[in-house]
Amino acid sequence: MSVYNRDSANATPGARGMIGDRAPSQTSLIGRSLAIERHLLQWVLAQLGRAPLCFVLWDGTRVSPSGVAPECDLHISDRGALWRLMSHPEYQFPEMYVHGRVGLGDDLEHVLHIVQHARRKLDPSRLTRRLLSALFRRRSGSPARARENIHSHYDLGNDFYKLWLDEQMVYTCAYFETQATSLEEAQKAKMDRVCRKLRLRSGERVVEAGCGWGALALHMARNFGVKVRAFNISRSQLEFARERAAREGLDDAVEFVEGDYREIGGNYDAFVSVGMLEHVGPQHYRELGRIMDRTLPANGRGLIHTIGTDRPGPLNTWIERRIFPGAYPPSLGEMMPLFGPNHFSILDVENLRLHYALTLRHWLQRFYASQDKVLEMFDQEFVRAWRFYLVSSETAFATGHLQLFQVLFARKGCNEIPWTRAYLDDSDCP
Amino acid sequence: MSVYNRDSANATPGARGMIGDRAPSQTSLIGRSLAIERHLLQWVLAQLGRAPLCFVLWDGTRVSPSGVAPECDLHISDRGALWRLMSHPEYQFPEMYVHGRVGLGDDLEHVLHIVQHARRKLDPSRLTRRLLSALFRRRSGSPARARENIHSHYDLGNDFYKLWLDEQMVYTCAYFETQATSLEEAQKAKMDRVCRKLRLRSGERVVEAGCGWGALALHMARNFGVKVRAFNISRSQLEFARERAAREGLDDAVEFVEGDYREIGGNYDAFVSVGMLEHVGPQHYRELGRIMDRTLPANGRGLIHTIGTDRPGPLNTWIERRIFPGAYPPSLGEMMPLFGPNHFSILDVENLRLHYALTLRHWLQRFYASQDKVLEMFDQEFVRAWRFYLVSSETAFATGHLQLFQVLFARKGCNEIPWTRAYLDDSDCP
Repeated sequence: MSVYNRDSANATPGARGMIGDRAPSQTSLIGRSLAIERHLLQWVLAQLGRAPLCFVLWDGTRVSPSGVAPECDLHISDRGALWRLMSHPEYQFPEMYVHGRVGLGDDLEHVLHIVQHARRKLDPSRLTRRLLSALFRRRSGSPARARENIHSHYDLGNDFYKLWLDEQMVYTCAYFETQATSLEEAQKAKMDRVCRKLRLRSGERVVEAGCGWGALALHMARNFGVKVRAFNISRSQLEFARERAAREGLDDAVEFVEGDYREIGGNYDAFVSVGMLEHVGPQHYRELGRIMDRTLPANGRGLIHTIGTDRPGPLNTWIERRIFPGAYPPSLGEMMPLFGPNHFSILDVENLRLHYALTLRHWLQRFYASQDKVLEMFDQEFVRAWRFYLVSSETAFATGHLQLFQVLFARKGCNEIPWTRAYLDDSDCP
Repeated sequence: MSVYNRDSANATPGARGMIGDRAPSQTSLIGRSLAIERHLLQWVLAQLGRAPLCFVLWDGTRVSPSGVAPECDLHISDRGALWRLMSHPEYQFPEMYVHGRVGLGDDLEHVLHIVQHARRKLDPSRLTRRLLSALFRRRSGSPARARENIHSHYDLGNDFYKLWLDEQMVYTCAYFETQATSLEEAQKAKMDRVCRKLRLRSGERVVEAGCGWGALALHMARNFGVKVRAFNISRSQLEFARERAAREGLDDAVEFVEGDYREIGGNYDAFVSVGMLEHVGPQHYRELGRIMDRTLPANGRGLIHTIGTDRPGPLNTWIERRIFPGAYPPSLGEMMPLFGPNHFSILDVENLRLHYALTLRHWLQRFYASQDKVLEMFDQEFVRAWRFYLVSSETAFATGHLQLFQVLFARKGCNEIPWTRAYLDDSDCP
């Protein structure tokens, strides 16, 4: 079920007075703010390390840490919004923003940077982490659930993603040789880098788990001469990928299969998965590893490219519920059941966190430029939700709350592996 | 207490007839081998995947897998040796070899390659792994125990290690640009690579945990202009390192401190540890991580270079008891408590397994060339033990039983990190 499907575009705002993004103030008639409410907000600010924020309440009351010059105002439109915010800040802050009950002016990016930096100092106890993890993990699970989760995000319509992704529709972290590299070049560089890490040779067979709109599968076939079977459960992505393969005359080299990673069969020289592991759930890694084990030969190798974290812990609750149902970015430690128990050795791990922050910056610029079109396709709440999602993701990578790991692995004991990393700069590659 | 200290050099052989490395045969008078003994050896061969080995018993009986042409003979000198071998093969095989009760002719390397390859197919149950782990982990522990463990290996005498290490006395995995690189060049290249990964700049302060004979500390000071405090608990190594620092006029730049990693205090720009983590024990990683956290600033970075494994499990029992008391090579997953909980992000992991196999090959060649001198210093059992240790280590890296991880990390959220890996090839470096 889509959270932001087209049907919701005409949903009417709630009964309460809504506040737009610009300078909301005393629009509410629900009475003056109470001392306890102001104290609670001071406590929140203390928890955020006396962040330079000012809460502006519906009655015009301003609450900021004493002795700190606030850099941004957060307008709270009504008492209900305030108490929701207090009850579950991580979830309700974006939620109230989306519904226009928390207003940030044009300061969304600034506020999120402040909040993320403040959060760096907070260190939830292990128990809290465990509880959150346990609560979360019920989401991803059966193939049916996986299908539902994927549809809600990736089937929003190819036209929507075309507005702000690169021309090849790559919806994963790019690789920027320099910070001035264009998004288009950087996505191509990422795909090349993945292929080089895998040392693909003409005629080899590659299986791709989770292929998006097919850009990497087509790139591998076109530029490295391999045969690819690429799996995906998003029908609209598959349609797009198949059309493109036919248009490029690559439909003999690339087979796009509608199926979950669990349905991967056959034998391949290499296994690749870019941006899928986040949707698998750690409880299934051992199983995914068994599939890699079953499909790869004694000189098989593979690469997993995934969003990750420094230590186990759930994704931001709001992103997980509203944007990526069932998603979970693993820590490197949590990924281990994929490899060791399935007779694979890790050869190389590269953290591309800052490349994802820059990728998101590019997407965000294009999203801003197309905001009117998105509004025509959906509604204001959808626009706000995506803006929040893109900005908070950029901030998460920029501040190190999220990492981006490329993990290269080979069959345990296989000595047909590169001697040094010089192969990455092999200028003979296409 | 040293297992192979000089006092044992004059130890007399046991009362039983000893067998040398060459063609042992019916020297025993303890009776003919029994049917059950031959059956048990067949079972062992079956467990080893019908490895092409032939057991030659004290009465001349030959036992090999039917239909397999044996490539090597293993001579068993007496009934006691056979039953010890059966009771705990991993430990007693090297032990009986060292005591001359299992003879391998000149085939030590060949036999170990066959056994290691056969072991690749065996996969001990998780319970077995846990039990072995639990048994093992009692070893490393208190600072006193750490000191005792380290002394038994590293205080064998600098003259002994000079016989077969490179001229700088680096007793860790080298980095060979090509397989033709000399050991001397490869050790220098490894130290350069570590310094480049750490992006050391002139005037910075570096702390080194476990500095061996001081080569890396001196290299960093001499070639990168940094100030180093290097910790070690082996007195004979420290003496050597201090003398060398004085001789090179680097004693102002490098301070060699007699102390455990737990005694590290002060503030540094970088933390480095090459070949020490193996002696720390996973139960202390969180503590070691806290020390890194305490000593590094907001733009701090570090590198840990360690022998590792694909999945948790103890070191070979014999190596752990006889050569490296208390040693434990961690899996990458087991290393995680060092980083995430202590506010560090992993930037880069490089697996140099094949470089360690080649390093060991070089050491072994030098050891063979100096065998007579080693025999003068110690005794035949010591020579056999070290030969077994070096050959079995080479085999373990060559077959993927052991890995070599270089893990580069930085303070969580610090954006003063390299944009790409191009910095590794920075030709401006000394």
